[in-house]
Amino acid sequence: MGEVPRSHPRYNSLMGRELLTDAATEGLLAESALIAHGRGEAFNYLLGEATSDSALMAIKHAAAVMNSANNCVISVNGNAVALAAADLIRCAAVLQCPVEINIYYRTPERMVALYSKLETVKAEVMLSKPPVGWQGDWKVAVNSVPILGAEPNGRIPNLEGPRANCCKEGILEADVIFVPLEDGDRCEALIDMGKTVIVVDLNPLSRTAKMATITIVDELMRMTPLLLSHLVNSSDGKPNIEWDNQMILDSALRVMLSRLEE
Amino acid sequence: MGEVPRSHPRYNSLMGRELLTDAATEGLLAESALIAHGRGEAFNYLLGEATSDSALMAIKHAAAVMNSANNCVISVNGNAVALAAADLIRCAAVLQCPVEINIYYRTPERMVALYSKLETVKAEVMLSKPPVGWQGDWKVAVNSVPILGAEPNGRIPNLEGPRANCCKEGILEADVIFVPLEDGDRCEALIDMGKTVIVVDLNPLSRTAKMATITIVDELMRMTPLLLSHLVNSSDGKPNIEWDNQMILDSALRVMLSRLEE
Repeated sequence: MGEVPRSHPRYNSLMGRELLTDAATEGLLAESALIAHGRGEAFNYLLGEATSDSALMAIKHAAAVMNSANNCVISVNGNAVALAAADLIRCAAVLQCPVEINIYYRTPERMVALYSKLETVKAEVMLSKPPVGWQGDWKVAVNSVPILGAEPNGRIPNLEGPRANCCKEGILEADVIFVPLEDGDRCEALIDMGKTVIVVDLNPLSRTAKMATITIVDELMRMTPLLLSHLVNSSDGKPNIEWDNQMILDSALRVMLSRLEE
Repeated sequence: MGEVPRSHPRYNSLMGRELLTDAATEGLLAESALIAHGRGEAFNYLLGEATSDSALMAIKHAAAVMNSANNCVISVNGNAVALAAADLIRCAAVLQCPVEINIYYRTPERMVALYSKLETVKAEVMLSKPPVGWQGDWKVAVNSVPILGAEPNGRIPNLEGPRANCCKEGILEADVIFVPLEDGDRCEALIDMGKTVIVVDLNPLSRTAKMATITIVDELMRMTPLLLSHLVNSSDGKPNIEWDNQMILDSALRVMLSRLEE
């Protein structure tokens, strides 16, 4: 993949495919993860592989909501780690919130592999430049981001089995959860707990997209730098309380419709 | 998956996912195969996970063209074997034509695994019931289906590397090639050789779908029993020579559009 320049219009798609197959080899992913990524690729294709105006609106609103949270958490699964671990840790450093590994098909091997991967990426991010406009000691800020999930001490109500496991200091006590690529059942269970749930989902027709408080219909690698930038830019101010998520979903569908109509 | 009944509306999707992850474990698939399957899942979802009227029209026309061929061949890759090996061997038995393994990312290991899988499935199909309406000795008919590809002795012009390899008695001499899930480059190279190329592709916007002589926009597991039935039913007669493939693609797009518009 070294030959694909960052300016290539399909850079994200080609790089995403590479990152996911690498992550599968490293044992970070469940069996169904590559198939789920492929579904996303198809919807991304219909979006024209670009961040739409309405997705950008959702990203800005999400940043304001996350900045105003009492307890924010960034919940990640294998695909999120594979695609955007570094930028998600940067977001957590800016917010000074934990990152929690929370995977649907939980096995000890995958949890260890993901934890180790996140710790490695965190060490790399500590040595990287801080986001433009951010003030403070970046190394200290990144170092203080807890990576949770290895030892779950709480459960999400109304879910059965290991997928209900979570951490008290993370998902359980959070009022705002940023959880890219979540499944429908768990999204619903988190909403039922009264939490603000922000998801990233390329399929505006999915149950997750419909259930979430804020749905960002965009590709994760493409949207994380935008989210980071808006988290740093605190002038976004208080979140608009009259958020119309259905309007966002309709708008994403219209982008896809116009692409198919071409 | 034992608990999913055949009558389940999403049976094909759920079973397809299971078959693909099993095939990946067995070493039948390239790294990108599961991602490609996921893309197909998304388009299948937009099709309402059903065979459309225009797809059925394409299947009937394909059956007539395959029945009228001088030398037909069924070309399979890892995904096609994983999803529909038995029904594709049944089609080959009815047509008395070869099945050729032809994979984009050719490795000796995958070729051996696919060859061995097809021989196993062929032995099972020999012991299964013949298709309804078919006359003759089924065991003999299935037994005489050559499984080609292990020792390529020809090359597809205008393609570089191992992906150009093929068999003289299969793809090279065929006038009609049924090749589900083909990639765009190879589809174009086969068309440039003057061959009639019949593809199965869930994405009506793909280069393969646009390049092929006949494009069946349908899910492979769902369409193979229909193709088999129409191959057996010889009353389909001579193929309609005024085939409008663009109309078929437009029709598939309209089904997807109406689904998004809902």
